[in-house]
Amino acid sequence: MLKLKLDTDPVWVKMVVEGNISEILTDHAYCEQKAASSAISLLVHYPEYEELVTKMAELVREEMSHFQMVHKLIKDRGYTLGRERKDDYVNELQLFFKKGGQSREEVLAGKLLLFAMIEARSCERFLVLSENIEDKELADFYFNLMKSEARHYTMFLKFAHELCPNVDIATKWEAFLEYEAQVIGKRGVKETVHG
Amino acid sequence: MLKLKLDTDPVWVKMVVEGNISEILTDHAYCEQKAASSAISLLVHYPEYEELVTKMAELVREEMSHFQMVHKLIKDRGYTLGRERKDDYVNELQLFFKKGGQSREEVLAGKLLLFAMIEARSCERFLVLSENIEDKELADFYFNLMKSEARHYTMFLKFAHELCPNVDIATKWEAFLEYEAQVIGKRGVKETVHG
Repeated sequence: MLKLKLDTDPVWVKMVVEGNISEILTDHAYCEQKAASSAISLLVHYPEYEELVTKMAELVREEMSHFQMVHKLIKDRGYTLGRERKDDYVNELQLFFKKGGQSREEVLAGKLLLFAMIEARSCERFLVLSENIEDKELADFYFNLMKSEARHYTMFLKFAHELCPNVDIATKWEAFLEYEAQVIGKRGVKETVHG
Repeated sequence: MLKLKLDTDPVWVKMVVEGNISEILTDHAYCEQKAASSAISLLVHYPEYEELVTKMAELVREEMSHFQMVHKLIKDRGYTLGRERKDDYVNELQLFFKKGGQSREEVLAGKLLLFAMIEARSCERFLVLSENIEDKELADFYFNLMKSEARHYTMFLKFAHELCPNVDIATKWEAFLEYEAQVIGKRGVKETVHG
């Protein structure tokens, strides 16, 4: 179903699975928080799209429930939630989209494709984690989250098609997938969800 | 239980109750969203306080469920969620707290007292609305929300006492109550929750 252009580097998998699991959990917690914040930002900026507002409000609550799950894992294992990590991956993805001179619809399309991509890559990473982490509790946890991310990715792409009829979403998405493969191909060296 | 220094001006009540209810509903929806965003901001900035993070994550979900309730009222009545309104009241309240030169604990105390005050005033306004709106559905809705806001107000004050032992919270709160009475006393002319 997911068709990313490049699979996660096994080097990243090895590093995370053999590394300090509290690192990835802290980063993961903030990924969920950022997803919630992004959903809030979308509904504040596009209140005229009733269905989008409805779905984003639901999404905020779902992402925060994931944050709570990760936070509980952190607490149960005696770890502490660390400081927020910068997400260079997302910052690099954003460079794909032009700044300025765009219509409201083009800006919205860019945001929706960006969020779809983050969900898609997170989905792929969570699947890889679930298949490689020996800890059964964490493996199950990531397998279940993977399914949520896949739903979200589909939802964002669907909104892009529905709400941005004047943007060629299919072509843009294809080009963005190529770009994302280059971005992720340069990575694999950090103990973060998108590292 | 609540001891604000000044009751809401009946002029505001009359204006809101007799005015366009969609105005207050739109503003109210964004009050809930801002409360959710503030809770996210607190947990991101103070991850070392485990209990605060836990409660703020819960609060985000609760505030967003209130947002969903208001949004549903808006949709059910055939209204549309309008654009976000500036909240001059909150901006003025923030001026009470010095910028710069403060310890991390003092900054946190300021944020907690600010959020406590917003909840306290919202609580008072929702009670006034519940007692004056003829529409039974809305009156009940505001009466129930009033109880939530009262709980939140207590929670924020409790955190201020617990997490900021080097700040004289009682004295600061008393002075802030005096200040808030002045701020709200100058208002009463806008169809917003804190107008």
